[in-house]
Amino acid sequence: MGIVTLTTDFGTADGYVAEMKGVIASRAPGAVLVDTTHEIAPGDVEAAAWILDRVWDRFPNGTVHLVVVDPGVGSERRAVAIRAAGRWFVGPDNGVATRVLRRVGGEEAVFLDPDRDGAPPVSPTFHGRDLFAPAAARLAAGDEATGLGDPIDPKSLVRLELPEPVQVGHVLRGRVEHVDRFGNLITNIPGARIAPTALIEVAGTVVSGVRAAYAHGDPGRPVAVVGSGGMLEVSVRDGSAAALLRAGRGTEVRVRAERD
Amino acid sequence: MGIVTLTTDFGTADGYVAEMKGVIASRAPGAVLVDTTHEIAPGDVEAAAWILDRVWDRFPNGTVHLVVVDPGVGSERRAVAIRAAGRWFVGPDNGVATRVLRRVGGEEAVFLDPDRDGAPPVSPTFHGRDLFAPAAARLAAGDEATGLGDPIDPKSLVRLELPEPVQVGHVLRGRVEHVDRFGNLITNIPGARIAPTALIEVAGTVVSGVRAAYAHGDPGRPVAVVGSGGMLEVSVRDGSAAALLRAGRGTEVRVRAERD
Amino acid sequence: MGIVTLTTDFGTADGYVAEMKGVIASRAPGAVLVDTTHEIAPGDVEAAAWILDRVWDRFPNGTVHLVVVDPGVGSERRAVAIRAAGRWFVGPDNGVATRVLRRVGGEEAVFLDPDRDGAPPVSPTFHGRDLFAPAAARLAAGDEATGLGDPIDPKSLVRLELPEPVQVGHVLRGRVEHVDRFGNLITNIPGARIAPTALIEVAGTVVSGVRAAYAHGDPGRPVAVVGSGGMLEVSVRDGSAAALLRAGRGTEVRVRAERD
Repeated sequence: MGIVTLTTDFGTADGYVAEMKGVIASRAPGAVLVDTTHEIAPGDVEAAAWILDRVWDRFPNGTVHLVVVDPGVGSERRAVAIRAAGRWFVGPDNGVATRVLRRVGGEEAVFLDPDRDGAPPVSPTFHGRDLFAPAAARLAAGDEATGLGDPIDPKSLVRLELPEPVQVGHVLRGRVEHVDRFGNLITNIPGARIAPTALIEVAGTVVSGVRAAYAHGDPGRPVAVVGSGGMLEVSVRDGSAAALLRAGRGTEVRVRAERD
Repeated sequence: MGIVTLTTDFGTADGYVAEMKGVIASRAPGAVLVDTTHEIAPGDVEAAAWILDRVWDRFPNGTVHLVVVDPGVGSERRAVAIRAAGRWFVGPDNGVATRVLRRVGGEEAVFLDPDRDGAPPVSPTFHGRDLFAPAAARLAAGDEATGLGDPIDPKSLVRLELPEPVQVGHVLRGRVEHVDRFGNLITNIPGARIAPTALIEVAGTVVSGVRAAYAHGDPGRPVAVVGSGGMLEVSVRDGSAAALLRAGRGTEVRVRAERD
Repeated sequence: MGIVTLTTDFGTADGYVAEMKGVIASRAPGAVLVDTTHEIAPGDVEAAAWILDRVWDRFPNGTVHLVVVDPGVGSERRAVAIRAAGRWFVGPDNGVATRVLRRVGGEEAVFLDPDRDGAPPVSPTFHGRDLFAPAAARLAAGDEATGLGDPIDPKSLVRLELPEPVQVGHVLRGRVEHVDRFGNLITNIPGARIAPTALIEVAGTVVSGVRAAYAHGDPGRPVAVVGSGGMLEVSVRDGSAAALLRAGRGTEVRVRAERD
């Protein structure tokens, strides 16, 4: 019996996550349930895609990643289960798997039809409980995906357009993709593209050079590091770079390889 | 070994929930622990009863629902374990099980006496850890309830008086019972009692007709749906009905079956 | 396969905790993962030590307590695994285990060297995932600590200096160590040192006598109890002592054994 991770925008104050867990526990007794996060901002598919990308391949082959950030629930958007790099991704076909698919491609996908013949009734407002959780449970129990729905071409899956860093002359222009609990500004600029002596400009502040770790910065001052996801981060030791620099998701970040 | 769910008002910043989990893990190794929510407002027994009602029957027979919202801990209120529809409910006898008992009745109940002969000492401020968690562990391990305490009549259990919708002429008057993370206003009016063309009035705003799903509303505008718990909900697509309508728990909701 | 608890300052909105869980689940399939809390304030080692002290011995022998509150990650601070009273404590050597070591002493400790020969690369910003989680997984799987690193003297482990209550004449002066979700002010004064008729002064308010339970107080008025951790607490029934008395961590608390 496998692992099912849960990533939602449901928060933890309502019973929605527990309703899904009850469904999974009832249908796949022994499945191990792991919360990724339930604090995605309501409907923020892009943030869900970012978090999922950080997490998915830390879990073993066979893990089922259930991702329910689903502002279009009950509309025409498809419900899908996708296999990629040996893991399953179950949720709405709205782009939450974009980053995973970009990294490793999709090996197989099926359409989870809420109106399938013989299927139990599905609440049009809570596919997480009535459609995705049962599908995740069956995959965790080892069932074939072909029993869940008709195959679809993984190439047909919805993908978000993700902003990429752009080189303009000597300047690499990227942006902040995520602000974490520590106020670290995590960018979309790969650490491998930055010279150790680079100048990094965020919201009018210039940080000189890339350090090995947060602790190598001076307290209260911004420091640039290559974070644990391999991307350039701007941080403040014992403080919040987001607060100090008044920066957030979408803030432009410029990198110059050398003084000019 | 069974499932134990935990529903409390302890929050997740303190160690109280983990103390209970440690007790259960020590006494019922292999029990599966599932958090329902720990974000019930302190002492809000009515909210705990509402959440529990949403969740309990999604879990399989034999599940132990541990519910510790217990403003009267250490007072004369009883501690109890209740069996209903094959699940166990362990917690204070203060009404948290009201909605469950109303739906399915109680099959069996026992009094958990903190001063029982031979019992280990119980902190008068933390029955969750010292009285309820050990009882839940024993039930999850398959012990008989009769070993936990003297039987009591399920009819003697405390029940909350719950406000019910009232029909006044052509108008059905109910109220908002719960506001979820999305700002959805979940009422106590069963969806089955509402015509698809009904007019729904909340806090001075009239919503016309019931839609199948949130996504069928217009962005930023209130929409009425029958939610995943079977009750009338007023929502705002890509927004919060609670914020837009300045409504919350207790706000009156009026339904007219047809224009008059 | 054992239990691994996780105590961090990572919050639950980012994927950091899930990344650690994925690592543990991959390397120690079947390990039971229990969240203690992830809401320690960023870098608040003292608070982590306090919470850990409340929780650790509720879990059975063999449990691995993974504690990642690590403002010095990537600096010269050591990474360690410590055995105390049959449990393992894995994390930075920055004092998080101070209270445990003070209670029961350390039986064994090893240095987890991120630069060990043959070890996989370790992100200098996320030892939780790359160094501590793998070590916790191996201990949960039953591996010997000696396989994880070189032994070190438990006496060499970093310990925080903790403020102790001081007797000055007839007055015992302590302080608030923790404010919980209910606004209870939990002090560092052992309940055993207080007469039931003592006068307790906090932030200019005097509370007379120690009651058995919160519910024995008058609603809205401060009440003193001996809390579930054995320490003097000042609480407000159906309210917050922290808010009412404008007190918090570090606020002085004075106890007089009798009127004078």
